[in-house]
Amino acid sequence: MTGKVDHAAARAAFERALAEDAREFGNFFLSRFLGLAVTYPDDDTCVVELDVHDYMFNPQGSLHGGVIATVLDISMGHLLNRRVGTGMTLQMETKFLRPARAGRIRAEGRFLKKGRSINYLETRLTDAGGALLAVANSTWQLLGAAGPDGAPRS
Amino acid sequence: MTGKVDHAAARAAFERALAEDAREFGNFFLSRFLGLAVTYPDDDTCVVELDVHDYMFNPQGSLHGGVIATVLDISMGHLLNRRVGTGMTLQMETKFLRPARAGRIRAEGRFLKKGRSINYLETRLTDAGGALLAVANSTWQLLGAAGPDGAPRS
Amino acid sequence: MTGKVDHAAARAAFERALAEDAREFGNFFLSRFLGLAVTYPDDDTCVVELDVHDYMFNPQGSLHGGVIATVLDISMGHLLNRRVGTGMTLQMETKFLRPARAGRIRAEGRFLKKGRSINYLETRLTDAGGALLAVANSTWQLLGAAGPDGAPRS
Amino acid sequence: MTGKVDHAAARAAFERALAEDAREFGNFFLSRFLGLAVTYPDDDTCVVELDVHDYMFNPQGSLHGGVIATVLDISMGHLLNRRVGTGMTLQMETKFLRPARAGRIRAEGRFLKKGRSINYLETRLTDAGGALLAVANSTWQLLGAAGPDGAPRS
Repeated sequence: MTGKVDHAAARAAFERALAEDAREFGNFFLSRFLGLAVTYPDDDTCVVELDVHDYMFNPQGSLHGGVIATVLDISMGHLLNRRVGTGMTLQMETKFLRPARAGRIRAEGRFLKKGRSINYLETRLTDAGGALLAVANSTWQLLGAAGPDGAPRS
Repeated sequence: MTGKVDHAAARAAFERALAEDAREFGNFFLSRFLGLAVTYPDDDTCVVELDVHDYMFNPQGSLHGGVIATVLDISMGHLLNRRVGTGMTLQMETKFLRPARAGRIRAEGRFLKKGRSINYLETRLTDAGGALLAVANSTWQLLGAAGPDGAPRS
Repeated sequence: MTGKVDHAAARAAFERALAEDAREFGNFFLSRFLGLAVTYPDDDTCVVELDVHDYMFNPQGSLHGGVIATVLDISMGHLLNRRVGTGMTLQMETKFLRPARAGRIRAEGRFLKKGRSINYLETRLTDAGGALLAVANSTWQLLGAAGPDGAPRS
Repeated sequence: MTGKVDHAAARAAFERALAEDAREFGNFFLSRFLGLAVTYPDDDTCVVELDVHDYMFNPQGSLHGGVIATVLDISMGHLLNRRVGTGMTLQMETKFLRPARAGRIRAEGRFLKKGRSINYLETRLTDAGGALLAVANSTWQLLGAAGPDGAPRS
């Protein structure tokens, strides 16, 4: 199957990713390589937006499920980090409703339940026309600032 | 946070990905960028192996959950494609048991149930020492014969 | 551990369940035994309500996760049956946010995506005060038109 | 739809459930009502067996998904309680592979990962012929003996 990716777009993404050394929430190699724009429009929401490029495709020529999972994961983990504390994903369930092939897409993460140890979040991915592409929800355990019982972890 | 990635390793991965134009199972841009080796040791198994590099990290400095999801997804979707037919992931659930920071890791996908329409698969990700890093399972609908709405897809 | 259930309540539930022979959506043995009230307030919603009783408890003395799963499943499957057609659950993921020990609880099922073959639904369980107890979402394949292997089911 | 359940079987199950007051692991109202036999053949396994009866059916006349979820949940939660400590289910994902209509079925729960706070378990449900009916896995947080950081919780 021919699947020549847009070399200029892929190279621009790669050089953008390598041009900085930051590894922090909102700005790390993968987030720069995928061209993610991370914003927090209100206290309960994290929005992650990106333009779909063909270097992100699966063999069938649509956005790879793993890239979708990456974007959805970030929309939840970044919200948790911003509002409660850094956590690790215990598990994540993702439903793939429609394929994405082009345009700007947007994930919107929200809390289902905040906690001092266990936190639950959910997120939805939509295309530029508002069609629902994927949903996910996940379970997180807080690290760092406060351990599972409120005691410092590190 | 300092998170300077190994530029040489990242650039080698990127140039390897861009040097070919194939977009097929086992060989597409993302699989080349992640350095995936996909093999089928027997009729019921697909193994995906890769070396962990820091350009795959999350802000905390371990393998990003989205990269893990990508590798796990491929170990199931490639097996389905090889043994039954091309499918689309309806959903996937992933549990993250331990972080991965270095070394060669290995996902092993297997069938839970084959079907002419719906197929169920599972997979496990282990490190070089055999420790279980993540598990996932997923539901797939075959394309080709009949698409998601009963109409032929291809 | 002492866990004497309210005999009168349990017996009333059982006799109510056995007093009728219907096995249909909204009215089958388990729905009568659990005292479920199933309503469809609008085209996109199915509400299932019940009073929590101690014969539904787990060993720790709160509503058993399996009973929660039953109620959540029904709020989605009944909506699908009412608005699209009878389906079988391919999978379901449930998150348990808070235990329930008493009072009237309410599950509200909605569509994530309707389809001629695959349908996605979600649901939320709340207590009388509106606190979120559990969420679930699920993937369904329609029966009737075409079964799981493309052959008519009924 | 006619769906007259076997009154004698249902009544025997109910009276068996009500005849005892125990509410403990392996013996509580729902476990007695469903006729569950819970055993621990080795350190890493919990087996739950039951005979399928029509009082456990969904409107379509097969074992209700909620009853399946109940049995699978118990096969994991009882194992955790026996080997590590009492926990609460944070989430559970269930895949329904084949319907069950009669006979003796068997769920076999196992650990994916033990932990002082978070524990992961999986389970498989098979019929008398060994056919795989359903699989589930789940995430648990320990209560009681040891809190999430090894400190007593209660």
